[in-house]
Amino acid sequence: MNRSALIRLIFEKKSFLCIGLDPDLSKIPEHLLQEEDPIFSFNKQIIDSTHDLAIAYKPNFAFYESEGVRGWNSLAKTIQYINRSYSGTVFSIADAKRGDIGNTSGQYARAVFDPESSGMNFDAVTVAPYMGEDSVNPFLSYPEKWIIVLALTSNKGAADFQFFGDGSHRLFEQVLMKSKGWGSNENMMYVVGATKAEMLADVRKIVPGHFLLVPGVGAQGGSLREVAKYGLTKECGLIVNSSRNIIYASPGVDFADKAREEAGKIQQEMQLILENRGFNPQ
Amino acid sequence: MNRSALIRLIFEKKSFLCIGLDPDLSKIPEHLLQEEDPIFSFNKQIIDSTHDLAIAYKPNFAFYESEGVRGWNSLAKTIQYINRSYSGTVFSIADAKRGDIGNTSGQYARAVFDPESSGMNFDAVTVAPYMGEDSVNPFLSYPEKWIIVLALTSNKGAADFQFFGDGSHRLFEQVLMKSKGWGSNENMMYVVGATKAEMLADVRKIVPGHFLLVPGVGAQGGSLREVAKYGLTKECGLIVNSSRNIIYASPGVDFADKAREEAGKIQQEMQLILENRGFNPQ
Repeated sequence: MNRSALIRLIFEKKSFLCIGLDPDLSKIPEHLLQEEDPIFSFNKQIIDSTHDLAIAYKPNFAFYESEGVRGWNSLAKTIQYINRSYSGTVFSIADAKRGDIGNTSGQYARAVFDPESSGMNFDAVTVAPYMGEDSVNPFLSYPEKWIIVLALTSNKGAADFQFFGDGSHRLFEQVLMKSKGWGSNENMMYVVGATKAEMLADVRKIVPGHFLLVPGVGAQGGSLREVAKYGLTKECGLIVNSSRNIIYASPGVDFADKAREEAGKIQQEMQLILENRGFNPQ
Repeated sequence: MNRSALIRLIFEKKSFLCIGLDPDLSKIPEHLLQEEDPIFSFNKQIIDSTHDLAIAYKPNFAFYESEGVRGWNSLAKTIQYINRSYSGTVFSIADAKRGDIGNTSGQYARAVFDPESSGMNFDAVTVAPYMGEDSVNPFLSYPEKWIIVLALTSNKGAADFQFFGDGSHRLFEQVLMKSKGWGSNENMMYVVGATKAEMLADVRKIVPGHFLLVPGVGAQGGSLREVAKYGLTKECGLIVNSSRNIIYASPGVDFADKAREEAGKIQQEMQLILENRGFNPQ
């Protein structure tokens, strides 16, 4: 999906909500455990129930890999279902935090972007920047695909290295400054944590036009209004993720309806924010 | 596997060779493509042919994920085969470069360390440090398991951020200094690239007793003697990886024999290095 199609989705749905698909067998409704593939069944019902309120879905690979081959099978079925049923109407993010030397990153890119090889066809993948340019480049050779580079994360450990600095810049700023030249705002985004909303202003000084994927609204405590205050651009420029608050809104048979209710509350707030800013996707 | 068992393996085999299992369907011998699971068949024959010369095997997850569910199945079969046939006689490394917020890293840890959940039971996993302590800790709660943190990698892009510094330290040194306190040399190692052998001296100033996993000997151009000169400790302290030079030594039906020949050359050189240093593991 290219940039203008993504912006159009945001305009049409009046939403910049991404729903994180982090299915945990110990947390999904019990009645699903009798199904052949409980995780896929859970995801499918969440997606069917929320696809007009969310612009994106983000399966977190760890929650599938912890179930081994069976989990990877549920993951592949989930993205295949999205591609089949909601082609062009949702943006899909492989939240995998990959990154390795060039020929290895090339293989990771095939895993998420080349359905002939892997059976999976995402729009975007999250990437860790530690290994530098040649670890990122192989992901950039796919047209209309995106990489989302970790810049400033939402966890406590972000302070350990991301704030390490040379006096004039901190590491996360160095990552933004260097990496933005490897692609463009047509194929790169950045992960910027919502628990530090005012730092979005520092991020925007370096990447004023890039989309930012913002985790941490909801379970991790970030505030949507704060994020919008510092991060919103005239083309929106934000994809805000919520996972647990939505997908685990109810442990019962009504989980998909309750997920819709929670997603609807966030979408309503997003619509207000967009209208207040006179959002116009031209 | 604990530290003393690992050192004992090195002593018994007179080797600190790790063989990287990076099977690429476009490079493995053609006659294997007719088998039901060519990748597993390739790995099995390489392992059977080299297990007395190598102390460790390191499947690189990207090469399995690029084949999707089928690839993960080959990966699971490979580690299950190692556990079943060579239990206690080889060390196994999940080369996955994982790292995410705490609850997600916990799921990644289950994927590689909890066979009840994922079907896979490795001795060690490679981890990216960018997200800090809480992204690393969940891997450390498994007894006799190891994490191998990226410090200084062997690729060109290593220079982009790993050398970023505050005047007194570079990022890779900051990673070593901070992270070594999160565990001990009983459950942590570091990835240090062989293309910069003299920098192993800088690494050893900070982590004199930790094992280092050294990629880049062979296809990436590092020299084994240089690595040993700067990195060897009285307990060896090195695991040196070679992948393509060994596993693709021949494209024919003799690939496993040729792999053994190449592994044997490296093992011989390692034996000389260990003997010259009077290596004695108690």
